[in-house]
Amino acid sequence: MNFCSSCGQRVALQIPDGDNRHRYVCGACSIIHYQNPKMVVGAIPEWGSKILLCRRAIEPRHGKWTLPAGFMENGESTAEAAARETLEEANARVEMGPIFSVISVPHVDQVHIFYRARLLDLNFSPGTESLEVELFEEQDIPWREVAFRTVTTTLERYFHDRGQGTFQCHTDAILPVRPTGKV
Amino acid sequence: MNFCSSCGQRVALQIPDGDNRHRYVCGACSIIHYQNPKMVVGAIPEWGSKILLCRRAIEPRHGKWTLPAGFMENGESTAEAAARETLEEANARVEMGPIFSVISVPHVDQVHIFYRARLLDLNFSPGTESLEVELFEEQDIPWREVAFRTVTTTLERYFHDRGQGTFQCHTDAILPVRPTGKV
Repeated sequence: MNFCSSCGQRVALQIPDGDNRHRYVCGACSIIHYQNPKMVVGAIPEWGSKILLCRRAIEPRHGKWTLPAGFMENGESTAEAAARETLEEANARVEMGPIFSVISVPHVDQVHIFYRARLLDLNFSPGTESLEVELFEEQDIPWREVAFRTVTTTLERYFHDRGQGTFQCHTDAILPVRPTGKV
Repeated sequence: MNFCSSCGQRVALQIPDGDNRHRYVCGACSIIHYQNPKMVVGAIPEWGSKILLCRRAIEPRHGKWTLPAGFMENGESTAEAAARETLEEANARVEMGPIFSVISVPHVDQVHIFYRARLLDLNFSPGTESLEVELFEEQDIPWREVAFRTVTTTLERYFHDRGQGTFQCHTDAILPVRPTGKV
């Protein structure tokens, strides 16, 4: 951020009165431009014992597999965002269930939220951001080809919980440790 | 938003190629400025059968009671945000438990997330944004003086679940219907 989005003058990084963090503050109109984490919201679409995954047609992680998910938009709820992303990426209609995972990714200022969801029919197909959309049994999940660590963690916990016969809501944070740089 | 925060030139509302929503796009450098919901994260601090509430020293809802909560910052996890806000608003130390509620407020582009949390000691006191901090039994909750509907909903579900002897993770959305304009 270099300029004030309100008045167009230069901003500077400073700690406002009564605050304890650096913010971008406009030198002309004094507006403080707060920056906050973004939510990525998606679904775990279930069809019997199978789970729907999408193979990404876009960067990052082009060609890798993921659960349908994307940035939440203004004016919608988290459940609406999860349903919209599932429709956009997989042309798939789901009945939304409970929240299954809330995973923070502090080093990229994101929080990823996944709902369990019941796939309503088999008329799914790749959306513009997907190369393929496919149902997988647990033993067929392409673990080494999963796009994001939040998705790997969500799937691991999902199958663990399913094995136990009871689903929790999981909250976790992912740290920037992997040399591959995977989110 | 009137100006590009990157180059300082005028932005215009338009639907970018491959998108289906209006975004602020810079006429000079072509950057698309996405706007996304913000997270408000907090805790339900428990001390035996009592719950800690804060009376707000700031607007909006000055003088009303709330659970400790505030805007999540970049670089932290949701659990860290909940602990930080509890410390800032109530000078209270907690051990974070599971996520209890995820409540969208689409008309103000926010998602409110509350964790159950165990208060570690009774050395709490009002932070700079609080007038009072107090422990309440269920029958003493000042329901008509609660600051936000997401807090009312969270507390209602909390005591309901506690009465049932089992806690769920609740996800919900709050609609802009109340004439009082309460969030």
